[in-house]
Amino acid sequence: MDDEKQLVHPEDDLSSDEDEIKTLDAPKSLPYATAKEQPSTSRSQVFFGSGITQTNNNDVPPLLSLEPEPAYEGSSGNNAGTASITANSEPIFHVRSRTAAALAGTAQQTQTQYESLDYDVCENALFQAEQRKRLRDRFSLRIHVIRWIIFILIGIVTALIACTIDIVIEELSELKYKFLKSSVDHNVPVNESTGDLALPFFWWLLFSIVPVAIGAGMVTYIEPITAGSGIPQVKSYLNGVKVPRIVRIKTLAVKAVGVITSVVGGLAGGKEGPMIHAGAVVAAGISQGKSTTFVKDFRIFKAFRDDHEKRDFVLGGAAAGVSAAFGAPIGGMLFSLEEAASFWNQNLIWRTLIASIISSFTLNIVLSAYHGLHDFTFTGLFNLGKFDQPLTFEYFELPLFMLLGVTGGLLGAAWNSLNTRINKFRKRYVPWKVGKVCEAVLVAIMGVTLACTMIYFIDDCRPLGNDPTIHPVQLFCEDNEYNAVAALWFQTPEATVRALFHDPPGSHKILTLAVFTLVYYFLSCATFGLNVSLGVFIPTALVGAAWGRLVAMLIFYLFPNALFLHPGKYALIGAAANLGGVLRMTISLSVILMETTGIETSFFFPLIIALITAKWVGDYFNDGIYDTVIEVNNVPMLSWEPLPQYKGLTANEILSKPVVSIKLVDSAHYIYEVLQKCNHNGFPVVDDVVDNRRSEGRVCGIILRSQLIVILLKSLYVENKRFWIPETSIQTFRDVYPRYPSINSVRPLDKKINYTVDLSMFMNPSPVRVNTHDSVPKIFNIFRALGLRHMLVINNENRIAGIITRRDFIYK
Amino acid sequence: MDDEKQLVHPEDDLSSDEDEIKTLDAPKSLPYATAKEQPSTSRSQVFFGSGITQTNNNDVPPLLSLEPEPAYEGSSGNNAGTASITANSEPIFHVRSRTAAALAGTAQQTQTQYESLDYDVCENALFQAEQRKRLRDRFSLRIHVIRWIIFILIGIVTALIACTIDIVIEELSELKYKFLKSSVDHNVPVNESTGDLALPFFWWLLFSIVPVAIGAGMVTYIEPITAGSGIPQVKSYLNGVKVPRIVRIKTLAVKAVGVITSVVGGLAGGKEGPMIHAGAVVAAGISQGKSTTFVKDFRIFKAFRDDHEKRDFVLGGAAAGVSAAFGAPIGGMLFSLEEAASFWNQNLIWRTLIASIISSFTLNIVLSAYHGLHDFTFTGLFNLGKFDQPLTFEYFELPLFMLLGVTGGLLGAAWNSLNTRINKFRKRYVPWKVGKVCEAVLVAIMGVTLACTMIYFIDDCRPLGNDPTIHPVQLFCEDNEYNAVAALWFQTPEATVRALFHDPPGSHKILTLAVFTLVYYFLSCATFGLNVSLGVFIPTALVGAAWGRLVAMLIFYLFPNALFLHPGKYALIGAAANLGGVLRMTISLSVILMETTGIETSFFFPLIIALITAKWVGDYFNDGIYDTVIEVNNVPMLSWEPLPQYKGLTANEILSKPVVSIKLVDSAHYIYEVLQKCNHNGFPVVDDVVDNRRSEGRVCGIILRSQLIVILLKSLYVENKRFWIPETSIQTFRDVYPRYPSINSVRPLDKKINYTVDLSMFMNPSPVRVNTHDSVPKIFNIFRALGLRHMLVINNENRIAGIITRRDFIYK
Repeated sequence: MDDEKQLVHPEDDLSSDEDEIKTLDAPKSLPYATAKEQPSTSRSQVFFGSGITQTNNNDVPPLLSLEPEPAYEGSSGNNAGTASITANSEPIFHVRSRTAAALAGTAQQTQTQYESLDYDVCENALFQAEQRKRLRDRFSLRIHVIRWIIFILIGIVTALIACTIDIVIEELSELKYKFLKSSVDHNVPVNESTGDLALPFFWWLLFSIVPVAIGAGMVTYIEPITAGSGIPQVKSYLNGVKVPRIVRIKTLAVKAVGVITSVVGGLAGGKEGPMIHAGAVVAAGISQGKSTTFVKDFRIFKAFRDDHEKRDFVLGGAAAGVSAAFGAPIGGMLFSLEEAASFWNQNLIWRTLIASIISSFTLNIVLSAYHGLHDFTFTGLFNLGKFDQPLTFEYFELPLFMLLGVTGGLLGAAWNSLNTRINKFRKRYVPWKVGKVCEAVLVAIMGVTLACTMIYFIDDCRPLGNDPTIHPVQLFCEDNEYNAVAALWFQTPEATVRALFHDPPGSHKILTLAVFTLVYYFLSCATFGLNVSLGVFIPTALVGAAWGRLVAMLIFYLFPNALFLHPGKYALIGAAANLGGVLRMTISLSVILMETTGIETSFFFPLIIALITAKWVGDYFNDGIYDTVIEVNNVPMLSWEPLPQYKGLTANEILSKPVVSIKLVDSAHYIYEVLQKCNHNGFPVVDDVVDNRRSEGRVCGIILRSQLIVILLKSLYVENKRFWIPETSIQTFRDVYPRYPSINSVRPLDKKINYTVDLSMFMNPSPVRVNTHDSVPKIFNIFRALGLRHMLVINNENRIAGIITRRDFIYK
Repeated sequence: MDDEKQLVHPEDDLSSDEDEIKTLDAPKSLPYATAKEQPSTSRSQVFFGSGITQTNNNDVPPLLSLEPEPAYEGSSGNNAGTASITANSEPIFHVRSRTAAALAGTAQQTQTQYESLDYDVCENALFQAEQRKRLRDRFSLRIHVIRWIIFILIGIVTALIACTIDIVIEELSELKYKFLKSSVDHNVPVNESTGDLALPFFWWLLFSIVPVAIGAGMVTYIEPITAGSGIPQVKSYLNGVKVPRIVRIKTLAVKAVGVITSVVGGLAGGKEGPMIHAGAVVAAGISQGKSTTFVKDFRIFKAFRDDHEKRDFVLGGAAAGVSAAFGAPIGGMLFSLEEAASFWNQNLIWRTLIASIISSFTLNIVLSAYHGLHDFTFTGLFNLGKFDQPLTFEYFELPLFMLLGVTGGLLGAAWNSLNTRINKFRKRYVPWKVGKVCEAVLVAIMGVTLACTMIYFIDDCRPLGNDPTIHPVQLFCEDNEYNAVAALWFQTPEATVRALFHDPPGSHKILTLAVFTLVYYFLSCATFGLNVSLGVFIPTALVGAAWGRLVAMLIFYLFPNALFLHPGKYALIGAAANLGGVLRMTISLSVILMETTGIETSFFFPLIIALITAKWVGDYFNDGIYDTVIEVNNVPMLSWEPLPQYKGLTANEILSKPVVSIKLVDSAHYIYEVLQKCNHNGFPVVDDVVDNRRSEGRVCGIILRSQLIVILLKSLYVENKRFWIPETSIQTFRDVYPRYPSINSVRPLDKKINYTVDLSMFMNPSPVRVNTHDSVPKIFNIFRALGLRHMLVINNENRIAGIITRRDFIYK
């Protein structure tokens, strides 16, 4: 690329960007030192847009001078739509970075849909002014109190939503299976002439297809982000990725109805994941005091309208969701920590724990009242059932538990791999919306058919009174017996897990459980990834509990004297192992299992043995299912540790440059042009700019795209300072959060007026700066610990050398 | 201060430093910009030591030229001892900082005894070389496996030590109180002539005085750091402060014996705090594979010999300690997090949890075996006793619990305040070692006397068989009755807590508990701060349990129909409230209480209500007891949030300058002189030094004092590079960890040989740099999140402007 090249006209060919990047990658091998020592003195000033020629005068801000950055060629679409801007202007930042090379591939379009959150607080002059005001009028304490109130509200509302989902599912399932049972009872062929089991089968099909079709339809046509469990999305959000539409009230509504219909429809999924997502939405909704869905601003909680506060509240909401889903307040807090917190802030964790506890308490009250209990000890909070007797174990069982862990790890890894393949297949061959709904219905039909086949062909009759099944189906059994296979299927998956944990020994035949495990394993695998709102926790636990119990029964069959074989214990260990193998969330998972089954501390050790073995075995093969989903969706998640290939690299090797910078006092026209031409979200603010080479200026701050747009929208120019200075505060910027207007909503500036913008009041004067020679693992730690969005790289003279964003750390 | 002033001769008056600092503070008001813009051209070069005059030549490294920094005047003691160096050379760093002003007071001598830990990994060229080597030979995996093994070992060994302490205390207390009981039984005056209760009183005194004297003597004469619970020390260490001798094996031994003797002696204290400290020592000992106490290097785990790894292991050790002390693995993990973790590292937390679980499991096995149980469900793990029935509560009890919380907060705040006063009094009036031992004995005598008086005068007889007291004392009671007052005193405090939680209603008279509460409140207040190894958890819980139970009894006395009044429940809430009021560790405390009493999730809410109210009420008055102890000892702890008075400040306003810097290639003589003359622990490495003004050089790295000493000791000079290059690795530096030799052990250099040191291989090339204009809250977050020791402040030209250390953030 020669320096003298003129920028092409905006209306020129826009599709050449990919080639451009490849060409631009060539000078990457140029050592940094050489580049630094040869200031590009021969570069000519190139102007576009106005055609005004301007001399290099640092006192008068230049109107529209941009550095002759080659990358602008592909991205100078002056009136380009959003899509082409997205695709084309990215290379300005990434022109010579590793990421640019990676992005040049097919992933670029998909990846750029995700932006980062601005977790870093912008401590600009307006913020400082507010702080001083707060200190003066004891506003600070009020803010703290309000924050506490919001966390408590989050806990209560999340629990109420969880209760509603819970109760509706329970009641509808009850009705459904009661009807099916009576239908079976009436149609069992006692002799050749009477009864036809096809009838209940068709009833069952109907009761599955209708709700599933409604649920899948809503998810597909109204809000596709509600598909799946929602945990990967919440996890991404808490990692600092702005997932579009994830925390809207509409999302919550669709998710709630979706999960009710799907569970009632009998799909192999649970309501736990969606409840956690619901908690996150509730948190975001309450804390912002306004709803985009209902276009309603309650004018409360205005001080919390920024990404930092919102993300903290969502942390609490997710914890409250877990707490409500499992009745596990500590598990909820740990879940939030394990998945989210990059920075351990004691006060935040404390508030999160309170939200969790309030949530579990509210749940307890409501469910106790619903079940007509007067004291607050509704044991249904242990929604996997409380073990009455403390579970005990013998020395020699520990290796056995470890083996179960290995099995869980293997099965889990296989499940993840199979599920990923199915979903890839699905993505490729079922792109149409109606196809997605049909697919969900198809899986529902498949499930019902398999269940019916099992019930019909496997002859497993048990005496009545032994099993606490609500709707014992007699079918072909004797009069005082019930069909144990039907008992497994005629209830929600959650109830089946409970049954497997707590049914007395000898409740099933070995064949029953073996077939059931097999069927449910593949059924759940086919279900996760459908366009329905369903979690993966319960089916995973169910499969694990089934094969865990199966193992106990097999051993007992081989060694009838092995009295230590409490089948419920093995079901629990199996569930833990399977969960560990699929989810790999070890810390919170173990605590959740402990809290939700009420096991004692002394049984914590075998549980963790199984979990950790499963996790390690699984990790050998692939990632956990949530991480896989995140990866498939190209969400730029930051891992806990820097990727191994970054070891030994320096910032210079991963940064993106040249950087589009803005001078401390710059012309409004220039800012307008920059915002039109590229879609970056942060711009370094520089001064000491020689010859208008802004991308070599000295860094003095960073300004966000959203702030620049507000400045232009509100005409906060130096020239009319006296008009806006009195009424401009940080609230001016918060008011438009979170849906910042696009630059296109800014009225184009009259090009004859030389408005200037003084950024010193608006910019963040303390951006995180690192040196070009800093090691990547170290700057990764800073980036992650502080939840940054932009990290400026400076050279030895404090001049801007490049910028590092989230994406620069995840090149694989 | 004029620039031409000559440095005083080393042997001159050294005591003028305090005045100096005050004088030097005067130019503080000089704006930084002015100072920057006026390079001190008129400054003359001043040399000391050798008297060699040298021209300013950047090619030949100057031999001994130091900038004429005014602060050197007071600190140029060439052969000054450690004490005077400590006192005098500090101002080089702090000459114009706020800290210097604070330090100029009396606290200076005390504060400087604490150094920070180097949690920031020094990623120098040698480290990179090791990393590459590891990647090559799969060393990386081995390191991970070894790390896991160490964490498991930490769990096991900590539990074994805890078991030993536990069992020995139990056995000895059993013997003691059995003997006392029989002594009482034999000496009860049935009629005028027989028996004399003075005899058992004297026996009791003897059995208290002897062990307490032994314990206090050991603590006072052998290892004074073992006094108290050890939690404040561990907390300080995990916060990043190097507390001398805190993690030595000698400390562990003294602590173990100390806690046994003190608890057996009957002092009002618990064994829990010391167990946590023991866990920390075990962690540090095992992970380093060598013992300073036994001067033994096992030549294992050499890769973990740095502050970063050691601190991570200590985190696990503390968690294992809590887990062993309370049988609360999750509580242990949360304790470590609440007190320590500034950066949430998932893998670290995961290992910490494993250490906790292993520890509680080991404890369970050993105690089960000791108590002759065959399954692993020794309920003694719930060492405050498991509640058999799930605790329930009514709506209207919640305000009552809140009131209990307020009471706990008030009582706790008063306790903390009183205890601090007592300890200040103690520090002032009992400075002699023998006095400290006598004091402990005195408190022991006081305790026994008060107990005897209570037992003698309060007539509270209960029928036998009602209370599970092991040694029921009959005293003046009827034949089938026992003395309920004696039952409270004739066991360890822990057993009394258990009794108060679980004794059936009506086990005590109101008067008994009221007097007991009063006596124990003041007794425990007098005990904490004695020179004995004792924790504060159990006495605090005991006081709380006593008044909690008392409240229930009072209400029941007033409203005899209030059947909801389970006195054990109120004892638990009271204990929680009192603990919250004294300790203020809310998150871990609530979980510990939950795990150690086996209460259900549904009772978590009332518990937290009481805890949080107590904490808030207490916080209104003063800090928690651990924080108070830390503050009294002037330990430079970093709080969670930046102190309020730092809001709105910039780095420029808190930094210390001028900074003693070292050139990238500098003369060995200069380094030697610098190390001799000042005791700073980190020196910026600069290049682009004009006129030998090192303190204005461009920053290119940071080097630690310890590294410089090793360089000088091993003669790693440029001139003899070929001799040491092949055998020098990062292990060379690790070998001398943690007891780096003093600069005095370096043989003075022959001044005629111009050895030079090239620091590019040894320095940390990625120090954390912030700009002079960065806001303090933001840099505080970076400092805390990364666990830094030094933070370099640079100006707009990347030249060194100052340095910020831990102390600069804690000026109040």
